[in-house]
Amino acid sequence: MSSADTFLARWADITAIGSAAAVLSWDQETKMPAGGQAGRGQTLSVLAGLQHDHLTDPALAEAIDRASDAAGDDPVLDAQVRMARRDVVRASAVPGDLARRMAEVRSRALGVWQQARADADFSSFAPVLTDVVEMSKEQADALVAAGIAEHRYDALLDEYEPGATEAQLVTLLGDLRDQLSPLVKAVTDSGVVIDESPATGSFAEAAQLELGTVVAGALGYDFESGRLDLSAHPFTTGFDPGDVRITWRPEPDDFRPGLFGIMHEAGHAMYEQGLPTELARTPLGAAVSLGIHESQSRLWENQVGRSRAFWEWALPRFQQAFPGTDSVTVEALFPALHTVTPSLIRVEADEATYNLHIVARFEIERQLIAGSVEVADLPDLWNDTYDELLGVRPTSVTDGVLQDIHWAMGAIGYFPTYAIGNLVAAQLFDAATGAIDDLPGRIASGDFAPLLEWLRDNVHRHGRALSADELVERATGVPLSSAPFLDYLRTTTADVYGIRL
Amino acid sequence: MSSADTFLARWADITAIGSAAAVLSWDQETKMPAGGQAGRGQTLSVLAGLQHDHLTDPALAEAIDRASDAAGDDPVLDAQVRMARRDVVRASAVPGDLARRMAEVRSRALGVWQQARADADFSSFAPVLTDVVEMSKEQADALVAAGIAEHRYDALLDEYEPGATEAQLVTLLGDLRDQLSPLVKAVTDSGVVIDESPATGSFAEAAQLELGTVVAGALGYDFESGRLDLSAHPFTTGFDPGDVRITWRPEPDDFRPGLFGIMHEAGHAMYEQGLPTELARTPLGAAVSLGIHESQSRLWENQVGRSRAFWEWALPRFQQAFPGTDSVTVEALFPALHTVTPSLIRVEADEATYNLHIVARFEIERQLIAGSVEVADLPDLWNDTYDELLGVRPTSVTDGVLQDIHWAMGAIGYFPTYAIGNLVAAQLFDAATGAIDDLPGRIASGDFAPLLEWLRDNVHRHGRALSADELVERATGVPLSSAPFLDYLRTTTADVYGIRL
Repeated sequence: MSSADTFLARWADITAIGSAAAVLSWDQETKMPAGGQAGRGQTLSVLAGLQHDHLTDPALAEAIDRASDAAGDDPVLDAQVRMARRDVVRASAVPGDLARRMAEVRSRALGVWQQARADADFSSFAPVLTDVVEMSKEQADALVAAGIAEHRYDALLDEYEPGATEAQLVTLLGDLRDQLSPLVKAVTDSGVVIDESPATGSFAEAAQLELGTVVAGALGYDFESGRLDLSAHPFTTGFDPGDVRITWRPEPDDFRPGLFGIMHEAGHAMYEQGLPTELARTPLGAAVSLGIHESQSRLWENQVGRSRAFWEWALPRFQQAFPGTDSVTVEALFPALHTVTPSLIRVEADEATYNLHIVARFEIERQLIAGSVEVADLPDLWNDTYDELLGVRPTSVTDGVLQDIHWAMGAIGYFPTYAIGNLVAAQLFDAATGAIDDLPGRIASGDFAPLLEWLRDNVHRHGRALSADELVERATGVPLSSAPFLDYLRTTTADVYGIRL
Repeated sequence: MSSADTFLARWADITAIGSAAAVLSWDQETKMPAGGQAGRGQTLSVLAGLQHDHLTDPALAEAIDRASDAAGDDPVLDAQVRMARRDVVRASAVPGDLARRMAEVRSRALGVWQQARADADFSSFAPVLTDVVEMSKEQADALVAAGIAEHRYDALLDEYEPGATEAQLVTLLGDLRDQLSPLVKAVTDSGVVIDESPATGSFAEAAQLELGTVVAGALGYDFESGRLDLSAHPFTTGFDPGDVRITWRPEPDDFRPGLFGIMHEAGHAMYEQGLPTELARTPLGAAVSLGIHESQSRLWENQVGRSRAFWEWALPRFQQAFPGTDSVTVEALFPALHTVTPSLIRVEADEATYNLHIVARFEIERQLIAGSVEVADLPDLWNDTYDELLGVRPTSVTDGVLQDIHWAMGAIGYFPTYAIGNLVAAQLFDAATGAIDDLPGRIASGDFAPLLEWLRDNVHRHGRALSADELVERATGVPLSSAPFLDYLRTTTADVYGIRL
């Protein structure tokens, strides 16, 4: 074997272990009987240990070095080596003892969080969250020492959004906050109440599933390389480009969570189905960042799924699926797809207020990591932040600081990727609209192929060969900014609420 | 960690890899989209390699030695060490180069076999089957050299039925052949035709599923630790005692394959669900042999499922599931559960002729391994053997020598375990009938718990702590013989066909 082949063969093994773990996790969320819980946890933990062992095996580092020496001016192999080194350095930077303690604390934190949330009792969660925060600092310091990033928060963020920095987010999310808050306040003050009746009623699960399946297939989600199942929380998981699965959860009295959930996950899944086959199981054969991943789901869910053009195509299908909706029109439905309502729960938030939920979390978690805020202060800080940003105040920690699983999982630095996704989606869609002749007309006629092709070409095919920033700038001609997203929101808000800001 | 803990922790990791692979295989047979095929094959191959690496790691052998030194007079740890050594020796005996060649040839053989079977063309399969046979000989010789067994065929058999020998099977299966052949011939010559109409008609899949679920649950299959799915070929797979899954395939016009298939797989699954939790993920925490495994499936399928007592309980449930069957009686149905019809296809064979299919394969494969028969001679030898044993002769290799997947998978020495299972089932059921007060009455009232408890106590709870032979003798008081099975068959044949031999 050539030195490149040796390196890539080792990498394919590591990817296979991750792929196996992903199948087990999918099964756990969708099919596993209750009795399998304990054993599955053990099996997944063994696979995680094996993957870590292989990633930090000195023989791999040596294989990467040899491949690097042999790369010459092969830019692809060069990029493979670069990404592999990054992953190896990340995995190796955290000492084994710390990694084990982190796994133990995270596992404990999850159980404690679930109970604390059920009991609406932050004090029982505070000690283990303190452990999570302290260990995240330790982990971040180890990553900084290894040269992964310059600052603590950046080192954590880098796991989910490689290359992004706290400084960049302070600008980007600060801008969002400054512009969104008055917009949301103007909507609230307007007193306009949207008629949501076209989106509510009684929607049989089987009919929702059939409509969701037709829509996902029409967008370009390939059911021959995927499947759709029920789960408590919708998610997408890909084992390789040939097997990328999505899940959904319908509401019986509102079609929106079901349908838009499927479109969202289909967007994630089409990214993974579109990763180049020739890069599969190599360091480049994965999504570049969670922010870019989220841009793919949000683009299909929001920019496409909540557009008039889409509903010109979708409405007859909607009416066929749900008897008694014959009188629904695109114009009657459109406002119900763009309601703006400040609320307490992130996962139920509309597309305008959603980012303020993210801003709140970003502000709080970076102070936690900087050490300028203590865990004990979180409930009040959370409530004050919501008051300030959204004008609403939780009356219970269940609807406040305990609502999300992320911190209990040790995922600090994850939340900003949701906002990045929203911004990137709007910026990419604008660029696609400029590049594709009559995109709205195509969408209105159910021809989604040109848009998918454009995303394949500008996003999917690169895998991890371009950084997220490079990808956005190449695809849209300008660096990432909040302007396209804010323009999109201002347009719909003007349209639906008659408000111009 | 104590030396025992170190040894068992390593073993638990190896078991976890196997458990992960089993989940992936289940998914592949039941849920995986077509696009996942290639990637899944690669992932499974990586897991198999990892498991082999860990099993043959010198550090494991050392851990076993240390645990052995520390075992003192702890009989359980002693048994753990003994079984672990056996598995390590088996895995280490085959040189890495041969193991890789075997994996490659088997994978190739499967594809060639499928095509050859579709084309009814043995000559296209013969070369790769020759490779399989030659490599099986090589493998067997390596195992004999490592002290696993004294003779080639024994070494192969030992993988599926540890401790069994060709010599023992020559007696056991020879006896079966000598007694079964005249019985089957007498039935054929009698000219009696069974009225199968109570078992045939139109059986909606949903109703079959509901009945099968009710029956499996009543027998004692725990759906909280398992699930039932469709698959092309029914099978059982267990990831640990808390997650043991079964599959089925219904026929629309005959309820028997669906219902008896589910009872069969539930029997397998109750064995795995009944393995002691405290032995889970240790060398003793598995089924002792495929023959004993098959005895559990056959006992519930045949000794229970085809009995009058069972149908006294089941008939009202059957009639409720399938409209229009109100006039069916136990007496009318009973003969249709015990038809004896010599046929060409093993998997469709009745309980009497089934073992003659096994005898045929055993006779042929041991000659192949001994080198006294060439692959090229197989089609004629197969047909002649069927003529002699069953009085039927295939007109196509598709219904003849190409019907089974086993040899293409390199599984030589596997077939006899089916016959062993049939014999053990009858012998165990006789012993249980002697030990349980009014077992038929209990079964007729739907009280299957005493029988399951007896099997838990005499079979399941031992895991691999007793050998198959020890287990049968302890449970039944006598060594394994064909007498109880032949008595069982003679009784039903006398009952249904009026033939006494």
